[in-house]
Amino acid sequence: MYTLLSIEGGVCAPKGFFADGISAGLKPDNQKDLAFIHSETLCDIRAIFTTNRFQAAPILHFRKHAIETTNFVLINAKNANAMTGERGIEDIETVLEHARATFKKIQNPVMSSTGVIGVPLPKGKIMKGLERFDLAKRDGNAAAKAIMTTDSYEKHVAFEVILENGESFRIGAMAKGAGMINPAMATMLCFITTDAAIPADEMGPMLKAYAETTFNAISVDGDTSTNDTVMLLSNRLSGVYDKEAFAHAIERVMHELALKIVSDGEGATKCVAFEITGAANREEAAIAAKALTNSLLVKTALYGEDPNWGRIASTIGASGVACDPATLTITFGNVTVYERGEILFDEEREAKAAKVMQKDAFAIHCDLGIGKGSFTAYGCDLGHEYVKINADYRT
Amino acid sequence: MYTLLSIEGGVCAPKGFFADGISAGLKPDNQKDLAFIHSETLCDIRAIFTTNRFQAAPILHFRKHAIETTNFVLINAKNANAMTGERGIEDIETVLEHARATFKKIQNPVMSSTGVIGVPLPKGKIMKGLERFDLAKRDGNAAAKAIMTTDSYEKHVAFEVILENGESFRIGAMAKGAGMINPAMATMLCFITTDAAIPADEMGPMLKAYAETTFNAISVDGDTSTNDTVMLLSNRLSGVYDKEAFAHAIERVMHELALKIVSDGEGATKCVAFEITGAANREEAAIAAKALTNSLLVKTALYGEDPNWGRIASTIGASGVACDPATLTITFGNVTVYERGEILFDEEREAKAAKVMQKDAFAIHCDLGIGKGSFTAYGCDLGHEYVKINADYRT
Repeated sequence: MYTLLSIEGGVCAPKGFFADGISAGLKPDNQKDLAFIHSETLCDIRAIFTTNRFQAAPILHFRKHAIETTNFVLINAKNANAMTGERGIEDIETVLEHARATFKKIQNPVMSSTGVIGVPLPKGKIMKGLERFDLAKRDGNAAAKAIMTTDSYEKHVAFEVILENGESFRIGAMAKGAGMINPAMATMLCFITTDAAIPADEMGPMLKAYAETTFNAISVDGDTSTNDTVMLLSNRLSGVYDKEAFAHAIERVMHELALKIVSDGEGATKCVAFEITGAANREEAAIAAKALTNSLLVKTALYGEDPNWGRIASTIGASGVACDPATLTITFGNVTVYERGEILFDEEREAKAAKVMQKDAFAIHCDLGIGKGSFTAYGCDLGHEYVKINADYRT
Repeated sequence: MYTLLSIEGGVCAPKGFFADGISAGLKPDNQKDLAFIHSETLCDIRAIFTTNRFQAAPILHFRKHAIETTNFVLINAKNANAMTGERGIEDIETVLEHARATFKKIQNPVMSSTGVIGVPLPKGKIMKGLERFDLAKRDGNAAAKAIMTTDSYEKHVAFEVILENGESFRIGAMAKGAGMINPAMATMLCFITTDAAIPADEMGPMLKAYAETTFNAISVDGDTSTNDTVMLLSNRLSGVYDKEAFAHAIERVMHELALKIVSDGEGATKCVAFEITGAANREEAAIAAKALTNSLLVKTALYGEDPNWGRIASTIGASGVACDPATLTITFGNVTVYERGEILFDEEREAKAAKVMQKDAFAIHCDLGIGKGSFTAYGCDLGHEYVKINADYRT
């Protein structure tokens, strides 16, 4: 038995972690755009990255050095340092060398970037900026703000996990999302810190396992970025660990941040859970659920609050999974509109289903009636604001 | 040697074909919504259909009766007769029985539908409407207008194919597109008529072969409909046939209509050819090209006339095909912005590439530099109008 207590502090909530965000002149109007996470002792670090074949320089750098321990993560917004070739990696080495020279206690520093693809890293600004870091600052909120791109608010979460014997450890995290969000490691950065005494070899598998049902189950626009990253840093300073409790806590952290990313998707006004049950197997359930999160016709119907169940059916049919109109059932919230071949969608149910869709968050449940596979994916609507943001992004 | 001559008449251009479109009260304001194609002699008919697992009733009806000859095709807009179960097929049988009773010369009639999914066919209106058909009318334009949904103009094309010995045959066609358009038999209906003396066993393979590089190479929104259909009707009345000439003519017909569908995509302002070369093989080239047509970030960048080549690279990288930043080259029109690992995108080239994108139609060429596979897919931009059309479609 254990208790999860929601606490403040984000990535600084666990013992021995520091973070801050400052303005290095990458964003206009003195907005925060450069963040760090620092631990007073060396951490184990594990990360999972995008499946995009064109991985950004920070990912290539991390892999090149096979980094397993660190006490410093540097994160910049506005520039992805992607498609920048060998030079992109050299730029990171120059920047991190400068960080090490500036703050003697930094070991095996790591860099992470988000922003425009294909523009060389503005390393001069970043190096000048990091000189102003105060490694003793504990402002998880400022750090979360600095890593935002088109996000409309900062995303962080933290829990104290209290075991039955009264001992506790903490886990904190921050993330950014908004655009280029898609199942297969959404375009997003997520940094998780913990003082739990988790064995290093349990960190990677745990990240992978829960990414599948959290970050990999969300989609804003079906585009998989070059920079997607989830990092877990553990300094073990609490001296406390319980595998089951930690697993629950990290899943909760990742799930909450994933949902925040969807809810704050570019131009999104709604967060929708697409619950698939009765698929031939779990993989097919995931394919159908993710197809629904990515269908433009479904997303625009969500935006229009139109219970156009035919588009839902058509998308499942087009996804390639085993399905049959005679066994399919579609339900908006608790309003079933199509049940095993029978159209129940009359004026009354249409009005009720439309009412469900007026909420900020709701579920659409599709039972394929074929087997026992189930999966839930999370998506959002697509409205004018998405077009506006993305047609004007660079200019 | 042969000559292709563009002619008027659409589906009525070939000898012995008749067509018209009338208003049956399915669309508001007396717009045309019901069309027929009739041949004075029995035709061979072959069709290819959507890959969606939830096939609409007209497709199930066609397959149930294994139709191979006909002299009458009835087409309605506004209702897809999809997800309507056994009743959907019975409704078609009732409607077509009424057509046979009304016009004695009708044999093996076929029906095709487009519109909203999941609403029973308004068969009363359709039966009343078809009574007003004049089977001697030759108004291919009216028929093309009647099958439109959110299309902004009617789409038809016809050619006279003149062989070296002076003999000729004709081929005509009409199509509708606009929304739910996607590679894998776009949501579209296309009807091709010919008086060429093509052997019946050559019709199906020819349709399939050219669908791949025409209708299956276009995408408006990545959604594959329940109703996609391409039908070829041949009455052989010219008595003339040349396989090579016919193959060229039907490919040309399908290609022209496919491009018209993309150019007239819902809310589209541009038609873009995504030319992939240097892929590991043709299949991978097609995957990458189609991924580009379906990326929201690419489509909104097209709309914003923003040569954001990073989104192009990222989409190719995410598509799963073999690729490498060190061998990739990206060119907008004739402006290369990224060449085998080198970023050429400076202010001058950005301005030039942006100028290319101001055109209504242009090509984006990506050489993967890996192998010899190539494929061209055709897509359009996504703007505010798409959101407006699809958020408001039912209401």
